[in-house]
Amino acid sequence: MDVVIVGSVALDSIETPSGAVERALGGSATYASIAASYFARAGVVGVVGGDFPHKHIATLRKRGVDLEGLEIIAGGKTFFWRGRYEADLNERTTLETQLNVFETFSPKMPASYRRCPFLLLGNIHPELQMHVLGQVERPRLVLCDTMNLWIDTALKPLRRLLRRVDILCVNDGEACQLSGKTSVTAAAEWLLKAGPRRVIVKRGSHGCSMFGRQSFFSIPACPVRRPADPTGAGDSFAGGFLGYLASCGRTDESALRQALVVGAVMASFCVEGFSVGSLLRLKRADVAARCRALHRAVQFEPIRLRN
Amino acid sequence: MDVVIVGSVALDSIETPSGAVERALGGSATYASIAASYFARAGVVGVVGGDFPHKHIATLRKRGVDLEGLEIIAGGKTFFWRGRYEADLNERTTLETQLNVFETFSPKMPASYRRCPFLLLGNIHPELQMHVLGQVERPRLVLCDTMNLWIDTALKPLRRLLRRVDILCVNDGEACQLSGKTSVTAAAEWLLKAGPRRVIVKRGSHGCSMFGRQSFFSIPACPVRRPADPTGAGDSFAGGFLGYLASCGRTDESALRQALVVGAVMASFCVEGFSVGSLLRLKRADVAARCRALHRAVQFEPIRLRN
Repeated sequence: MDVVIVGSVALDSIETPSGAVERALGGSATYASIAASYFARAGVVGVVGGDFPHKHIATLRKRGVDLEGLEIIAGGKTFFWRGRYEADLNERTTLETQLNVFETFSPKMPASYRRCPFLLLGNIHPELQMHVLGQVERPRLVLCDTMNLWIDTALKPLRRLLRRVDILCVNDGEACQLSGKTSVTAAAEWLLKAGPRRVIVKRGSHGCSMFGRQSFFSIPACPVRRPADPTGAGDSFAGGFLGYLASCGRTDESALRQALVVGAVMASFCVEGFSVGSLLRLKRADVAARCRALHRAVQFEPIRLRN
Repeated sequence: MDVVIVGSVALDSIETPSGAVERALGGSATYASIAASYFARAGVVGVVGGDFPHKHIATLRKRGVDLEGLEIIAGGKTFFWRGRYEADLNERTTLETQLNVFETFSPKMPASYRRCPFLLLGNIHPELQMHVLGQVERPRLVLCDTMNLWIDTALKPLRRLLRRVDILCVNDGEACQLSGKTSVTAAAEWLLKAGPRRVIVKRGSHGCSMFGRQSFFSIPACPVRRPADPTGAGDSFAGGFLGYLASCGRTDESALRQALVVGAVMASFCVEGFSVGSLLRLKRADVAARCRALHRAVQFEPIRLRN
């Protein structure tokens, strides 16, 4: 396996100004593995209940996502999330969360996943993320996501975890909350001292930035005329990021920058449809075209100031 | 005169998490003219009262800002604004506004300004902005700012004005409000149809984007570790933008992109101090260094996707 993704596989009911879906395929590991599957072999470590529709399994398999690490608890119910977005799609409201089988989830890595070089620790309890780290053999790169819930309720294990991951990937609000800083730049500096060698800060429709101890890289989001549903954008970003790194086999600054672009492109496709709809329909040429468009969008000639 | 700037010259009382100032030098034309003065001859069209401290006049003169267009009404009081920023400096609260001499302000262009090639219509009533346009002879480029107040109360004259300006410069919220769209991309498309040939959307600490009918350019904000006071950042941006264009004498896409970078750099200096403090202390080398840093911050190698 090139990329292993630990996270949620869920059913989502989502309402946005563009429409609504009921019990659609969702979850962080779902979005990330689909995005990664365009570039590398991706496997999922997660859990669903007996109610998880077989068509969703078929959808993931058809995309080439490996499901050996997906546990199915016949008598249980799948993690369910209901949320709503207002006109500003950067803000969302959680209306209902049913943890169900996720409540007692204990990630188990299949033997074939243990030597995977690229590992995505999706947004689950930091203790579980640490538990996963204990099951892999010297991964080349570990990317870690988290959320405000764990910053509030599990800060200590989260701090311990930060010392063991290569890259932390959070949004601007989470970066500030976790560091106690009010500017993203100060937050990133603080987080870099806490462990990871890169901090990726997602800025929703404004793009994303990657901070290193000696480096700063930032790109805009691909312009999307009619964003339909931002759910999973961050996970699609992370999956595209790791999938691209696995495909090129490098983790130097140049490759990380390219991976950030690929991640942003996958996120831009994700938000164009509800659930994983638009993420499933991609052609490699679509991805390449948006990577080129982002390259054009940031070009400028060196500036010479006159006296 | 290379750049003429119409807007407010004010006294600001500002409170942020980093500190506070009372009746400090402020106003859109103040920030914009100081920023522009680093690159070109800049003149101000505005009004102050007899209470306007002479030291502020001296400060502007020392920076080389031309004040022939600054009316001083001896018996009047200067425009006063009091505002507060919370931890998220992208959001601000107006606590007090005293229009004073600004209430009856009717911009008058001195004869020496009428043939200026670059004109900044700062954020004042759209009828006044139009009135200024009637006093200039075929400017090469007109940049127009506005705000939610005029979108709410003077939409019709604002719409008429849009047909007569080259570039509209607004923040993301204003772009959406003015167009009635919910995504910045859709808003920019709508605004481009309303008149201007470029729309600049400022995204606070997330950077800014420039939309054309066939072009899209976007840059991050320069990372600022300890932003002190964001007041005037957008005006410093606009002043730097036009000052740079005037200095290089071009208005093609390449020059506009460079000007956007220079504008973003001037805004980043502005937010590092209270009032115009940090904007006054710049050296050309400081500006050039941040332009180079922004160039490095957006570089990535073309992406080749493997099969």
